[in-house]
Amino acid sequence: MAKSIKHILKQELKIKVNGKLWLESEGDRFFGPGPLELLEKIEETGSISNAAKAMNMSYKKAWELINHLNAQTNSPVVVPQAGGEKGGGSTLTAEGLELIKYYKALRKRFKTFLENESARL
Amino acid sequence: MAKSIKHILKQELKIKVNGKLWLESEGDRFFGPGPLELLEKIEETGSISNAAKAMNMSYKKAWELINHLNAQTNSPVVVPQAGGEKGGGSTLTAEGLELIKYYKALRKRFKTFLENESARL
Repeated sequence: MAKSIKHILKQELKIKVNGKLWLESEGDRFFGPGPLELLEKIEETGSISNAAKAMNMSYKKAWELINHLNAQTNSPVVVPQAGGEKGGGSTLTAEGLELIKYYKALRKRFKTFLENESARL
Repeated sequence: MAKSIKHILKQELKIKVNGKLWLESEGDRFFGPGPLELLEKIEETGSISNAAKAMNMSYKKAWELINHLNAQTNSPVVVPQAGGEKGGGSTLTAEGLELIKYYKALRKRFKTFLENESARL
């Protein structure tokens, strides 16, 4: 009889199943850990510029991610905030907040999948 | 009430959840799509050298992947084949074959997970 995977892998090593998830549109990735962090930082810092800085990302790259993201949604996920002393601030829309919430829930379900799979090893 | 993710994403785009899986040992990846293909090609071609060639991979890199893999298992997954005109052939052990089988089954369960998640979008 064939050995099960449990008998093949060394049990003294901490072996587990791990992975990565993203959303893609026509094969083109547009949301994953990076864009999630960017949205969270925008929410936290109130601007795309500060969010990009906090992630060591160029402002240009941050805008590209956001434009790419906005192209997949019916309404933008990030909008310029009216007023403010310097202007230039940005805030997440309800859609942006919901996208964060959705992705975190998805990530939690994936974590459960990975834990179940790791328990088989 | 917050819009669901279905209402946020453009329904005319083919948006789906996709991802990648691997096995890791103490945080170090040792099995995924690349090593799977390498094992399959060894089984197909009867040698590590031919398998590496078929994948445009250096012989050195192929051996590194195999050594890394063998370090996680109780018995080696690939062994030199005794005899043969040129010698130098290699064959998968029962453990190597079982690892392929396990990973393909894992991949199938992951595919189901991704399909279920994509259906929510």
